[in-house]
Amino acid sequence: MADKDDDKIDLSRRGFLGGAGGLAASGLVVGAVAGAAGAFAVATQSPTIAAVAADAHPFYNQPHQAGIQTEPQKYTVFMTYELTTSSRTDVQVLLARWSAAIAQLAKGDTIGSPQPTRPDAVAQDSGEALDLGPEGLTVTLGLGPGVFDDRFGLSARKPTLLEKIPTLPSDQLQPEYTGGDLSLQACANDPQVAYHAIRNLTRMARGTAATLWTVTGFGRASAGPSQQTPRTLLGFKDGTRNIFEDSDLEKWVWTAGDGQAWMKGGSYMVARKIHMNIETWDTDAIGDQQNVFGRTKLEGAPLSGHREHDTPNFTKKDASGDLVIPATSHIALAAHENNGGVKILRRSYNYTEGIDDLGQIDAGLLFIAYMNDPKHFIEMQTKLGSVDRLNEYIKHIGSAVFAVPPAPKQGSFIAADLFA
Amino acid sequence: MADKDDDKIDLSRRGFLGGAGGLAASGLVVGAVAGAAGAFAVATQSPTIAAVAADAHPFYNQPHQAGIQTEPQKYTVFMTYELTTSSRTDVQVLLARWSAAIAQLAKGDTIGSPQPTRPDAVAQDSGEALDLGPEGLTVTLGLGPGVFDDRFGLSARKPTLLEKIPTLPSDQLQPEYTGGDLSLQACANDPQVAYHAIRNLTRMARGTAATLWTVTGFGRASAGPSQQTPRTLLGFKDGTRNIFEDSDLEKWVWTAGDGQAWMKGGSYMVARKIHMNIETWDTDAIGDQQNVFGRTKLEGAPLSGHREHDTPNFTKKDASGDLVIPATSHIALAAHENNGGVKILRRSYNYTEGIDDLGQIDAGLLFIAYMNDPKHFIEMQTKLGSVDRLNEYIKHIGSAVFAVPPAPKQGSFIAADLFA
Repeated sequence: MADKDDDKIDLSRRGFLGGAGGLAASGLVVGAVAGAAGAFAVATQSPTIAAVAADAHPFYNQPHQAGIQTEPQKYTVFMTYELTTSSRTDVQVLLARWSAAIAQLAKGDTIGSPQPTRPDAVAQDSGEALDLGPEGLTVTLGLGPGVFDDRFGLSARKPTLLEKIPTLPSDQLQPEYTGGDLSLQACANDPQVAYHAIRNLTRMARGTAATLWTVTGFGRASAGPSQQTPRTLLGFKDGTRNIFEDSDLEKWVWTAGDGQAWMKGGSYMVARKIHMNIETWDTDAIGDQQNVFGRTKLEGAPLSGHREHDTPNFTKKDASGDLVIPATSHIALAAHENNGGVKILRRSYNYTEGIDDLGQIDAGLLFIAYMNDPKHFIEMQTKLGSVDRLNEYIKHIGSAVFAVPPAPKQGSFIAADLFA
Repeated sequence: MADKDDDKIDLSRRGFLGGAGGLAASGLVVGAVAGAAGAFAVATQSPTIAAVAADAHPFYNQPHQAGIQTEPQKYTVFMTYELTTSSRTDVQVLLARWSAAIAQLAKGDTIGSPQPTRPDAVAQDSGEALDLGPEGLTVTLGLGPGVFDDRFGLSARKPTLLEKIPTLPSDQLQPEYTGGDLSLQACANDPQVAYHAIRNLTRMARGTAATLWTVTGFGRASAGPSQQTPRTLLGFKDGTRNIFEDSDLEKWVWTAGDGQAWMKGGSYMVARKIHMNIETWDTDAIGDQQNVFGRTKLEGAPLSGHREHDTPNFTKKDASGDLVIPATSHIALAAHENNGGVKILRRSYNYTEGIDDLGQIDAGLLFIAYMNDPKHFIEMQTKLGSVDRLNEYIKHIGSAVFAVPPAPKQGSFIAADLFA
């Protein structure tokens, strides 16, 4: 890692960390970065917010990053970035600055003064979320496989299971919605709060990371433990059998680190941009739609039962000897009973992006799922992409995978130990 | 108007109105249309909504359409359409069907069964707003100048003041965001409710009107009477001096009809899609930003005063003899004191649409304003487009104007008297 010392010198030379050069030279760059980030993001408290609000999620000293187990908020802005630097320290500084800023934003604070005293000073915070409060904001940070390629000398620290998702059956991925070295997912109950977070964090990344692709989502499309099950834009409920129990989170979501201490308590995020042919779907007969999902539309009951939370019976047959829940229905293919017990935590959002070239409403699902092994998604989607009856109406056009480290201790930053 | 009788026969032939053919032949097409629309949109009440909810806005028997004076909700989907039919009766039927459907949607109901009993039937309602309630939904319908061109025999019914907005100074209009024969603006406090309304109303228009351009907006960007003033994505408050008094609405917003009885109590909507160069704005010094607006950023006070609602003093000078509020600042140019008393009702929303070709966040303002004479906007924007200091940071890329008729009586539909 001797070649990386150049980065440290670089860092001090550019004055990024002010007086931290000495510390960097003495090898204490991690602490120096954290300290500098804290100094950078000292907040001007929003004038109307006196104390920590009830709808604020704590950032530091949690076992996991917020925005995973957190009950889905109503709105999201998901942004991916490519690293434009070749300096490991730049990456480190960005993660430190982002962490300090996310901590402030989650409290409903600005990330620096929106109205500096000197007229020739530039405001640090763009200001559009002033007066709005935390609104349940969470910003969840992910590291893509590119962080561990040969650019930054971090390949030995790569979690074993973090690999690019291969092309899967039925995939129609578009390069402009695929991949990413870094990701930020802001979720909030007010869209302007989520937008403000991503806008200002993106601004902070300038010179280190550039925007790659983004999706703005609404109307959470997967349920949390105490939430009514929401619906995707296909009109059916989604998330009835999501993960709700801590024991399932321990078993299927949180990772022991895959040999990397810095990932212990983290998870993997799979993001898919799924276009829905809603106008075609809208012309399909209700009987077929229900067979496609394996559930009724209004109640969301499995076709083998009556109530939403009835356990599906995948072997029940009708008078003609046909399966009541078709074997190629979405729930039959995705059910843990038919996937060796595997469960993934879904945290998806609906999106709409105007009108497409045919004059049809462009809409779909930002599918977001967390798991402790991305192969769980890959194996499930290999089945779904091959025979799922839903494929006639959906198209996977974007894809990315990220390692999501645990939350930092106060005074540190996300993935600090990656650089230790 | 004899040539229009063909339309009526057509209508009956296609079975659009079922048994209404005889009525159409006897000239009672208006009532027949309204009745048919009512029959079409008989709702399957959402299973979890028992009575009219507190957050429902009434549709029928109001002096004006909802969504104008209504305190801005948090989310909007604005859609424009071009008429693809040459039949006046098709237009009439669409307005009748839309009206009946909007009345149902505003109550939180579906617009027909989302799960018909017969498996081979197609659901009338796409279903994604089931269980969500009204969420303050309003859908405001507008008629563009094209409704009164030579296609439909309605030119004699055109309100005098409804004219296409000419190209104004600094305009950089893009054809794909400009014009429209019809418009629907859905506003709600839940984005999925607004989306559901526009999606299903669009579906209902198939064969009569095709989508033209759309903007999905969030975080209301103009204040209502009892609301805290919100902020645009430039971080400054917008709407401090919006119209709040009924007397101002009477004087500046509602029209006596401009010679057309069917427009009495209506208004005109000007819609502008305004792109903001937010990344350039974010690099501008705070002193300049405040001079651009003529207000402070945090408090939103005029530079001549201390508190947000202090009346701006446009003649006050500083020690050097310069105006404290620059004459080319946004508030100086837009103030009613400097525009012959003219006020317009603003009801704007912020928008973001991903990443542009430069990798910058694509964002801006869906400016929506209501007035009883579109010239009020044209004259104001002619000044603003010429010398407003804000022009360096914004770009008007879309534009349209619509006549917005009053609300219908129960049993009738929006603009029914236009066809009388």
